[in-house]
Amino acid sequence: MSKILGVIGGMGPAATVDFLAKLQAATPAARDQDHVRVLMDMNPQVPDRNTGGEAGPVLGEMAVRLRDAGAQVLAMPCNTAHAYAPDIKVAGLPFIDMIKTAGEAASAAGAARPGVLGTPSALALYRGRLASMGLEPVLLHPETQARFMELLYRIKGGDLTVGGEMAALAGALIDDGADAVIAGCTEVPLVIGAQDVAVPLIDATEALARRCVEACLA
Amino acid sequence: MSKILGVIGGMGPAATVDFLAKLQAATPAARDQDHVRVLMDMNPQVPDRNTGGEAGPVLGEMAVRLRDAGAQVLAMPCNTAHAYAPDIKVAGLPFIDMIKTAGEAASAAGAARPGVLGTPSALALYRGRLASMGLEPVLLHPETQARFMELLYRIKGGDLTVGGEMAALAGALIDDGADAVIAGCTEVPLVIGAQDVAVPLIDATEALARRCVEACLA
Repeated sequence: MSKILGVIGGMGPAATVDFLAKLQAATPAARDQDHVRVLMDMNPQVPDRNTGGEAGPVLGEMAVRLRDAGAQVLAMPCNTAHAYAPDIKVAGLPFIDMIKTAGEAASAAGAARPGVLGTPSALALYRGRLASMGLEPVLLHPETQARFMELLYRIKGGDLTVGGEMAALAGALIDDGADAVIAGCTEVPLVIGAQDVAVPLIDATEALARRCVEACLA
Repeated sequence: MSKILGVIGGMGPAATVDFLAKLQAATPAARDQDHVRVLMDMNPQVPDRNTGGEAGPVLGEMAVRLRDAGAQVLAMPCNTAHAYAPDIKVAGLPFIDMIKTAGEAASAAGAARPGVLGTPSALALYRGRLASMGLEPVLLHPETQARFMELLYRIKGGDLTVGGEMAALAGALIDDGADAVIAGCTEVPLVIGAQDVAVPLIDATEALARRCVEACLA
């Protein structure tokens, strides 16, 4: 019997659905019963992580709720909210770290200077993680980073037509020397894919999904 | 604050993801926080509903688990499993009936003789529900019904290339007088859409999603 995966979701809701679809795509399955059981709390009312909302206590409560309902492993398909990982770990369950997983995927793809598309909070996490792995992160300049945040909120509002502009931001990272681009915000792969970027695109959502399947089916 | 929706899912997993996407599409939302909070138990290990598995007790446990975790309204994106609705209602929460909702959507679309694509268990439920509404269901003949079940298990196994064959079954219902076709199995809308059917296609998954949004945001 596989382990039950607890998903701390809703940040945003469409990104959580994308994660669930990638979880299923990553599962070797010929029938319903081969798939991983998932308990999910899709809570779009978590305070906004980018505007100083007090998300930590809410995320901690969600983790405990999932544990008490039977989850055995936890994952959270939101890079930014990993700033609150300590609040989640209080639940005492294994927590599959998305930032670490994506960093390892970039390293496995041969990247030495991975660019990262993400929010300021997520970028802070990626900077530390990638440096600890001997990788040199490439980030957007302040004005293009501000543009990234505008696109992010448009995607959260349901506008999926900004793929071209997002791909241009990935291109700016490549112009600055990135040899791979980490989609380090779960809204990014909703609008661009590998075909839109001239270097390997590391989809943190997909990397997390694969790691979750490994953890739950092991 | 919206009500928390509890989703009894995993039958199959891809159909549950389709339901969640339709739930979000049906929600008037400009930002994450406008969406409905969802607690979900995606349990692909529910015994197979089509081969006499003892699904009732498992579904009842899932309903209680969701209630105890905080769900206030329950829904289950699987037509066939509605045969076990009494087991779910033991949890004491409002349960949004997918068969009833789809029947009402067919009636609202002006159908008098809706065809239904579904499993034998689901068809039994639809026959009773549609008759009680004064509608005359049109069903597949035994040999085409057997073909439907083959397609269903291919979709559950991940084969999404059977849209043409599924559309042909919808065409067979139209040939027999159906003035609408109810996609009365959650795998059906994974492979065909309104554009594939010459009469109105009633997507039971989408109808359920819309009703859930109404119930939770009311």
